[in-house]
Amino acid sequence: MSRVRVHNFSVSLDGFGVGVGQRLEAPFGHAGGRLLEWALPTRTFADMGLHGPAEATVGVDEAFASGWNTGIGAEIMGRHKFAPADAAWPDESWHGWWGDDPPFHTPVVVLTHHPRPPLRMQGGTTFHFVDAEPAAALTLARDLADGRDVRIGGGTTTVRSFLDADLIDEMHVVLVPILLGRGERLWDGLEGLEERFRIEATSSPSGVVHLRFWRRTPPV
Amino acid sequence: MSRVRVHNFSVSLDGFGVGVGQRLEAPFGHAGGRLLEWALPTRTFADMGLHGPAEATVGVDEAFASGWNTGIGAEIMGRHKFAPADAAWPDESWHGWWGDDPPFHTPVVVLTHHPRPPLRMQGGTTFHFVDAEPAAALTLARDLADGRDVRIGGGTTTVRSFLDADLIDEMHVVLVPILLGRGERLWDGLEGLEERFRIEATSSPSGVVHLRFWRRTPPV
Repeated sequence: MSRVRVHNFSVSLDGFGVGVGQRLEAPFGHAGGRLLEWALPTRTFADMGLHGPAEATVGVDEAFASGWNTGIGAEIMGRHKFAPADAAWPDESWHGWWGDDPPFHTPVVVLTHHPRPPLRMQGGTTFHFVDAEPAAALTLARDLADGRDVRIGGGTTTVRSFLDADLIDEMHVVLVPILLGRGERLWDGLEGLEERFRIEATSSPSGVVHLRFWRRTPPV
Repeated sequence: MSRVRVHNFSVSLDGFGVGVGQRLEAPFGHAGGRLLEWALPTRTFADMGLHGPAEATVGVDEAFASGWNTGIGAEIMGRHKFAPADAAWPDESWHGWWGDDPPFHTPVVVLTHHPRPPLRMQGGTTFHFVDAEPAAALTLARDLADGRDVRIGGGTTTVRSFLDADLIDEMHVVLVPILLGRGERLWDGLEGLEERFRIEATSSPSGVVHLRFWRRTPPV
């Protein structure tokens, strides 16, 4: 069975995966760019064309960041990862934050209450818009993934809903030492999550902590 | 000026310093002993007589745990650290969780709305019961500390109120990889705390993460 994985998902020390006030110029709301600052210098993010410096890092942040796409056959993302809250919708003029050649290069299932026809981009990324609960969305994504793994790409509400439905096999959460105070909390309603997962923490010289979760018992 | 310090203060991954249902048999409520599991094997906690094993550890957990009492002249603690919610009070029969010779060996200011006469224990610990806001309690504790540092001993509400009043100079918080889901949150209402502190994270083989906070600008 293919695995369901979360990668490079950053939260603040107080558990927020996104701030308040998301808009076109501020995909993470009042969090600004702080939740992804650790990732931008890595070779993986530089190779995505995401504002990386000329000399990308290959230390522990890169070691964790680099796993995000290996063996992945499809992604599932929430509507707010695909589009800002105030983006024109559903008039189909919005094609995502990532330009003509998004970095996914696989089918991407976008969860939305306003389905629209599939959107085929350059480089192998096709967005499929579906109104579905986590389990049904996963069935579709698995089908599109053709036996490979499925990545749950965020945002916060989407990751939490898949955790809540016990559909996630592996997770990489990055704890960023800032306090956002407001926004969407990743951990709400997940008491006892450690009973389902082994958890390993690795601190990085960049200041963040990489948390790796994997199932105590593999799915059958 | 003497410093105000927090040591060995454990919180769950979702930010709770104590669970719900605190009582005599469960000082941390439904969290049980899980928030302090990392500390019990250390030499520092073994030397306090707190259930440590015969062969105490001297690794990274001990390196952080051991700093708790050096240079400390007084502690401030909340009423719930001194007594369970359902302990007889204010009939003065309750002398704390720690027996006749508490591990503090300094004056201890207990914040309570029900003051009572000072309680002198063996080994140099004297509990002073005062009804005071953080700043006034700190003035008293500094006086009792005779020029040495003051430790804010907890619980969660007490540490948070001193952070909120910007009275803390150094802090050691231990992140325990469990999700409690319910209880008292340490981080609530502290948006932007990182602007006042430098923060360093160190992961331990025991599974916890030691977070060290210290003021960006020393107090004048």
